[in-house]
Amino acid sequence: MSSKPLDYENLNENVKKCQYAVRGELYLRASELQKQGKKIIFTNVGNPHALGQKPLTFPRQVIALCQAPFLLDDPNVEHIFPADAIARAKQYLAMTSGGLGAYSDSRGIPGVRKEVAEFIERRDGHPSDAELIFLTDGASKGVAQILNAIIRGPNDGILVPVPQYPLYSATISLLGGSLVPYYLEETANWGLDIKDLHRSVAEARSKGLMIRAMVIINPGNPTGQCLSETNLKEIMRFCYRENLVLLGDEVYQQNIYQDVRPFISARKVLLDMGTPISREVQLLSFHTVSKGYWGECGQRGGYFEMTNIPPKTVEEIYKISSISLSPNVPAQIFLGLMANPPKPGDISYDQFIRESKGILDSLRRRAHIMTNGFNSCINVVCNFTEGAMYSFPQIRLPQRAIEAAKSLGKAPDVFYCLKLLEATGISTVPGSGFGQKEGVFHLRTTILPAEDEMPAIMASFKEFNDGFMDQYEDHGRYSRM
Amino acid sequence: MSSKPLDYENLNENVKKCQYAVRGELYLRASELQKQGKKIIFTNVGNPHALGQKPLTFPRQVIALCQAPFLLDDPNVEHIFPADAIARAKQYLAMTSGGLGAYSDSRGIPGVRKEVAEFIERRDGHPSDAELIFLTDGASKGVAQILNAIIRGPNDGILVPVPQYPLYSATISLLGGSLVPYYLEETANWGLDIKDLHRSVAEARSKGLMIRAMVIINPGNPTGQCLSETNLKEIMRFCYRENLVLLGDEVYQQNIYQDVRPFISARKVLLDMGTPISREVQLLSFHTVSKGYWGECGQRGGYFEMTNIPPKTVEEIYKISSISLSPNVPAQIFLGLMANPPKPGDISYDQFIRESKGILDSLRRRAHIMTNGFNSCINVVCNFTEGAMYSFPQIRLPQRAIEAAKSLGKAPDVFYCLKLLEATGISTVPGSGFGQKEGVFHLRTTILPAEDEMPAIMASFKEFNDGFMDQYEDHGRYSRM
Repeated sequence: MSSKPLDYENLNENVKKCQYAVRGELYLRASELQKQGKKIIFTNVGNPHALGQKPLTFPRQVIALCQAPFLLDDPNVEHIFPADAIARAKQYLAMTSGGLGAYSDSRGIPGVRKEVAEFIERRDGHPSDAELIFLTDGASKGVAQILNAIIRGPNDGILVPVPQYPLYSATISLLGGSLVPYYLEETANWGLDIKDLHRSVAEARSKGLMIRAMVIINPGNPTGQCLSETNLKEIMRFCYRENLVLLGDEVYQQNIYQDVRPFISARKVLLDMGTPISREVQLLSFHTVSKGYWGECGQRGGYFEMTNIPPKTVEEIYKISSISLSPNVPAQIFLGLMANPPKPGDISYDQFIRESKGILDSLRRRAHIMTNGFNSCINVVCNFTEGAMYSFPQIRLPQRAIEAAKSLGKAPDVFYCLKLLEATGISTVPGSGFGQKEGVFHLRTTILPAEDEMPAIMASFKEFNDGFMDQYEDHGRYSRM
Repeated sequence: MSSKPLDYENLNENVKKCQYAVRGELYLRASELQKQGKKIIFTNVGNPHALGQKPLTFPRQVIALCQAPFLLDDPNVEHIFPADAIARAKQYLAMTSGGLGAYSDSRGIPGVRKEVAEFIERRDGHPSDAELIFLTDGASKGVAQILNAIIRGPNDGILVPVPQYPLYSATISLLGGSLVPYYLEETANWGLDIKDLHRSVAEARSKGLMIRAMVIINPGNPTGQCLSETNLKEIMRFCYRENLVLLGDEVYQQNIYQDVRPFISARKVLLDMGTPISREVQLLSFHTVSKGYWGECGQRGGYFEMTNIPPKTVEEIYKISSISLSPNVPAQIFLGLMANPPKPGDISYDQFIRESKGILDSLRRRAHIMTNGFNSCINVVCNFTEGAMYSFPQIRLPQRAIEAAKSLGKAPDVFYCLKLLEATGISTVPGSGFGQKEGVFHLRTTILPAEDEMPAIMASFKEFNDGFMDQYEDHGRYSRM
């Protein structure tokens, strides 16, 4: 019989071309080893609860009550839920049209979008319109939806920072567009190099591409840098001159581990700049409940906000959102709670602050332990994680290691990461999954392992790495640090 | 300044082409009227909880405990949760890798997929492999994912029943494929007409299309019919001969309102047929927690199961699922509970049966009230709703009504449904949103309004309709019934 429609050779080529390293070869091997009984430290995905981070209590109380509204009539409810959680649950249930089991408007519950708009307004000092905020099943779904509206075919180019989070490369492949890389400068703490940006655009145009949009990830994933206000202004001027939509992936905005460069939203910078730029640059900003001190990845809650997008386009995006009817409603409530957390004076305020501060303070300490740990290893150099959840050390692989990898048909960084996994159980993602300059190798790890386990993990990494370097050292190319 | 990338004229054409009537003009107008204070009866979407259906208690208890696991340590927990809900919550939490806040495997939690496989095996009498079951954010996301793998370009045709649920037309447009309609036969209670199927394929091929897949919706949406075993066997033979993937949308499998044609899954029919057909036809089956007596639409939980799909293709679909990391975890638990509900002897069993049977019995009565109500109206004829959640009456519009619609630039059925909405607050979807034969008009309404409100709603419908017909009657074309 001839081959069938869902046989591999007959699949949509864009599906086959797609790569997604975060759950690629390394992850599959790690899962296999785990099944065989090996202890695996999954640092391949920014998945805080999987590594022991406890959920914040207050939002979980509210959502439990919303899921089981009959508890609100139970005379015992006040013995196990605080009064402010009960009050919030009632408010959210009143905002839905039939509780968490009913589809909401495809853009999300109006009352929650209002809470998000108020959060943005407090954060940026500029009014925000709830009608221009759409809630989504995690930020990734929003990114895909917007890229889908932008990309018309293989000649549409999207500027993406390299190293980048592979959501972008995978989604652009899947939609049949072209990724146009611009390189972040490792020696300048992964800062934006505006000259490289110009060079990328010129090169892409010379190949016949039409550049339509630019992605920034701030704080950076996998690179962990925070963009300065100066950098952001340069980006706005660039997008204005080049007529590009700006996609601001700001899902790590709560994850900041230094005080020199606090998070500033792209939207604030844009609107602060004044006309014409503030009225002209089309901006989409993305946020989520998966990161920050929330880490509620499994709930799949996110939003995007639109600035300077014409009403007819907003309508089209609304129409496309309607096809899947509505984002999941429980995560919408999480988003409302994130935008509008307990306030001073509320019963749950102190606990909420204690828990959230505890998580952020610990992440800040872990960022330091991890960077210092990597920098104490032979042939490893690592920028400090200013924000986000990742460390992205450069691994200077000896020539003999590169050759050993090639003889096995593996990329050198994949070879190194596989060896690391087998030796230590640490599951990372090779830098090639994010993009890196030719001949330079990295790995990405999250800073999420429990703080008390971190020293042992870094010791185990160092033991493996230094042994590996000893084994493959070709003496001469790189000196020991 | 020149037009900008997200201005309407520069958007992806596939996005613009997409139509989605369920939340189209009628829904927007209904929302507007609601804002102005008018009482709207939203029967445009199968959204049971929005129309007052209460969620089943047991699953909500389990999910509330999973969301707030700290309750499990509270000495008061046993006063408000039954022991079997507590036990199930503990089991599910043990299946996750960090509770509901952690991403699961991109295919879903292995333990839940096992429960689904066991459910399928009990239902069909054939073993099912959990590795071939992927959990999704509602069934629609699974449909989109599979169509994405199938559709390579505008020459790839997908056979879709007409009238059809517009998820299919919208998704196929968005992915740039071609919808090939095959008509269901209204006079044969919306049965499949295999001759029309052959005619559609021949016509599409003559236009240069390659037919790759066939969609069936069983029970039907919007048409409400249940496919007979004979019909399903014909479909299998047809897919085998024509080398088509079969997409079986079976989300209404619990919604059956007669005993002559119980639900039979496409997979059971396929595997019962024996080789070569049972080994050759590639089948995807979709199911959800949004429908049945669950009606948990807002949770966005679904799954698809793959039969005869080669391992390399399964891997590709796994890779694509990975891009959005994981389906939302709370809805995965709902799916597990749906697949493995309380059993005789469990504390919650009696309540669960009472609640679920209460909902189904009432839906069955409502299906009758509605069909009878429509058939008592002038120029309205309606097949009985054998299954699913919809009634799809044909409205025989007088010529003068058609002309009045045209003079306003509206499709005749849209004109009628708008008038109905303004007069009664009943929000329906015009038949043109689902596809209908030339010159024939319908509307879709759900059978979900509360049972005690149903007589008044149908009376209000009849008053409007008969007045409308009187107003536009051109005497002669259709006689009164």
